Amino acid sequence: MSALKEVTLDNTKQCVSSEDFKQGMSALPGTVNIVTTGSEQNKAGFTATAVCSVSDNPPTLLVCLNRGASVYKAFENAKSLVINTLDAGQDNLSNIFGGKAVMPERFTQGTWGTLVTGAPVLEESAVSFDCNIVEMKSVATHDVIICEVVGIKQKEQAGALVYYQRAYHHLG
Amino acid sequence: MSALKEVTLDNTKQCVSSEDFKQGMSALPGTVNIVTTGSEQNKAGFTATAVCSVSDNPPTLLVCLNRGASVYKAFENAKSLVINTLDAGQDNLSNIFGGKAVMPERFTQGTWGTLVTGAPVLEESAVSFDCNIVEMKSVATHDVIICEVVGIKQKEQAGALVYYQRAYHHLG
Repeated sequence: MSALKEVTLDNTKQCVSSEDFKQGMSALPGTVNIVTTGSEQNKAGFTATAVCSVSDNPPTLLVCLNRGASVYKAFENAKSLVINTLDAGQDNLSNIFGGKAVMPERFTQGTWGTLVTGAPVLEESAVSFDCNIVEMKSVATHDVIICEVVGIKQKEQAGALVYYQRAYHHLG
Repeated sequence: MSALKEVTLDNTKQCVSSEDFKQGMSALPGTVNIVTTGSEQNKAGFTATAVCSVSDNPPTLLVCLNRGASVYKAFENAKSLVINTLDAGQDNLSNIFGGKAVMPERFTQGTWGTLVTGAPVLEESAVSFDCNIVEMKSVATHDVIICEVVGIKQKEQAGALVYYQRAYHHLG
């Protein structure tokens, strides 16, 4: 009953292109976050679904950032960042931080404060993780940024914004 | 309008315990996957939401695994693994691979085959990523396993299983 056999389904790929991979990834719901760094004069941020829990001791998250992204320079030598997890219905915030708007324009949406590190915290987020950057590890086209959580702001009641099958979905 | 100020919301933590972190993470929907390795005689697998896209060139994913988990030994020296993303309604598969059942018992649920690497592929998954392990990086209590995708099996029509607010949710 549990023997392994060759998969004979039609829809398999044994040579995986970038497009095949993106098509595969579209089947994985991704929670939408705005990742920010900097302070009042040089704040920067981008929309990311590539955020992942690593450990609860010490509380550790990671986020992946394309080294070719225009926002990369702002993170390259940063000491801290905030992962702001969006609430249901915050599609507009996701769009502006995932689009071409210049940094000051992005931060005209939402209410922004600070918590521990001084990096921008979105007051309307479902939850925000204020982090010290522990390490940046280069993997293929991206840096995997490993972060220790030093402050949390969480709404008492919130939903979630999920990107799935190339569209937004609201949970909660 | 975009000035940063100290966040004055009630629900903030400036000293983050493991429990605070878990409470924060419960607000992030996590897609449920079964991560497998080995071949017929020594197959092993566990349930994971800590899976994340890294790059599409080459197609690269990562998964985090607790070094204290009983399944860790099976992955420690593995050359390949499969990330099997569950379809809506596959709560039972998630539960058995996330519970205490011994490995052979886990694989009595579902239909298992192989694709490129020989590691176990779940035929009923929404999508399965067959991967070569590129690197394992130790971070706090966990290893971050970096994987290059060499085969994909994808259902034509599938939903997704999401863990959120400490419960299962079905998408699609």
